[in-house]
Amino acid sequence: MKLATLRTGGTTRAVRLDGDTLVDLGHPDLGALLEQDDWAAIAAAATGPTYPLAGAEFAPVVPKPSKVVCVGLNYRNHIQEMGRDLPEHPTLFAKFADSLIGAGDDILRPEETAEFDWEVELAVVIGKPVRRARGEQAEAAIAGFTVLNDITCRDWQFRTREWLQGKTWDSTTPVGPFLVTPDELPGGVRPALDVTLTVDGETMQSDNTGDLLFDPVTLVEYVSTVVRLNPGDLIATGTPGGVGHARKPARYLNGGETVVTEVQGIGRLENRVVRDGGAA
Amino acid sequence: MKLATLRTGGTTRAVRLDGDTLVDLGHPDLGALLEQDDWAAIAAAATGPTYPLAGAEFAPVVPKPSKVVCVGLNYRNHIQEMGRDLPEHPTLFAKFADSLIGAGDDILRPEETAEFDWEVELAVVIGKPVRRARGEQAEAAIAGFTVLNDITCRDWQFRTREWLQGKTWDSTTPVGPFLVTPDELPGGVRPALDVTLTVDGETMQSDNTGDLLFDPVTLVEYVSTVVRLNPGDLIATGTPGGVGHARKPARYLNGGETVVTEVQGIGRLENRVVRDGGAA
Repeated sequence: MKLATLRTGGTTRAVRLDGDTLVDLGHPDLGALLEQDDWAAIAAAATGPTYPLAGAEFAPVVPKPSKVVCVGLNYRNHIQEMGRDLPEHPTLFAKFADSLIGAGDDILRPEETAEFDWEVELAVVIGKPVRRARGEQAEAAIAGFTVLNDITCRDWQFRTREWLQGKTWDSTTPVGPFLVTPDELPGGVRPALDVTLTVDGETMQSDNTGDLLFDPVTLVEYVSTVVRLNPGDLIATGTPGGVGHARKPARYLNGGETVVTEVQGIGRLENRVVRDGGAA
Repeated sequence: MKLATLRTGGTTRAVRLDGDTLVDLGHPDLGALLEQDDWAAIAAAATGPTYPLAGAEFAPVVPKPSKVVCVGLNYRNHIQEMGRDLPEHPTLFAKFADSLIGAGDDILRPEETAEFDWEVELAVVIGKPVRRARGEQAEAAIAGFTVLNDITCRDWQFRTREWLQGKTWDSTTPVGPFLVTPDELPGGVRPALDVTLTVDGETMQSDNTGDLLFDPVTLVEYVSTVVRLNPGDLIATGTPGGVGHARKPARYLNGGETVVTEVQGIGRLENRVVRDGGAA
């Protein structure tokens, strides 16, 4: 199944994609749907009102997750091309939910940054509450996958020794449009999918999630060791090479660009970068 | 006013402290109260049911804040005694709300850590939605202050280059019991208050919030530059010297200790450290 959170009539609705139609699932968003133990059965059986896919406007796939956990270096070839050793443990950092925007929304480029950069990522969507999940329990906790662009203010990321303040700017992180369940993907809960990112049509990142050092199941095991994972929580699995900051010369988003972030078989974010006013 | 979130009858209630009585404010918790524009007037005027203070059990002062933002090095004398230069910008990291516990709850010491440490902190509670707040607007966004013990798994904090995984263990971070409004504090929104932490009666940390390099108003300005702050959000302002990891020899919490975390005029957390089972 492909599920999403649709904006309609000033509110949002959880929907299932059927061909060129979106079917209402009887819940206000995917966060509320995923809190139901039998969410998959509810989603499969729903026969509610329908909306056309053409012209649909999507909210963040889960609008208010209790956690957005992001992973640092996680693509083997990118780590090795940087001359680093493969890490023993995943590097984790957070975003707050207020950084999330929908798949077609404008990315607000703050006036306070001079180094606004992109990061295509496959993201895990959690479908069951788990703590210290292992093996099959961790696999079963994965509701599906979505696409996330971990937009970053590099100057703020490196101002201090912690990345958070470069990573969680308001309304900068598109996520969606669809949650795709593992049964639809080659590799299931450990999918091998092409990930790409373009800026104004120029390919900047291109890799495959089969190269992830810490796969989605391993990440659910690791993160849930530290803290419970709740339905709707997101784990962004890290980005491959090709970010603007690492280019020679460096390339950044200045406003006016269109960024397309895509994961094969899952979906595509298409966002304009617009300048955001700064201090009033 | 001193406000809190009380556990009672299997649920929670927002309350005001009147002498030795807690007065019901008509909302399920302080998060819900603070979402009301006129929360201070509601809290001042409430004449609801009462509960005795004696034996009261407190939930986290705000049970589900949308953000818990923590500040790294922020006490001048501690920075200088470590031989470091005063930083130009605050170092920020996150906790997830699922790490929070009440003022008298047991702190769950995970079996996965060998270096479980304490950090007394003054915490800001946000009372108005703000973005890019400056000056008086930032001052007015501070609903009040509370006490937080930023319990940390040092081994996990330093496993990778990001602190998050040492800072956000489930049910480890006591916060409360009271939100105290700035009008009750010397220094108002920039209060100079003694902060102390004891382990089994032995004083481990003792300092004064007047020594903060980045004061509460400056932190609201800085954090809200990056991302909106919502009513109920928490900013933990950092800890002074005296943590276990920096002692010679190092001291850690192994289970069985009682930790008392206190900020003068605001309140006191008293928590037992109990060992938490680890992998099932």
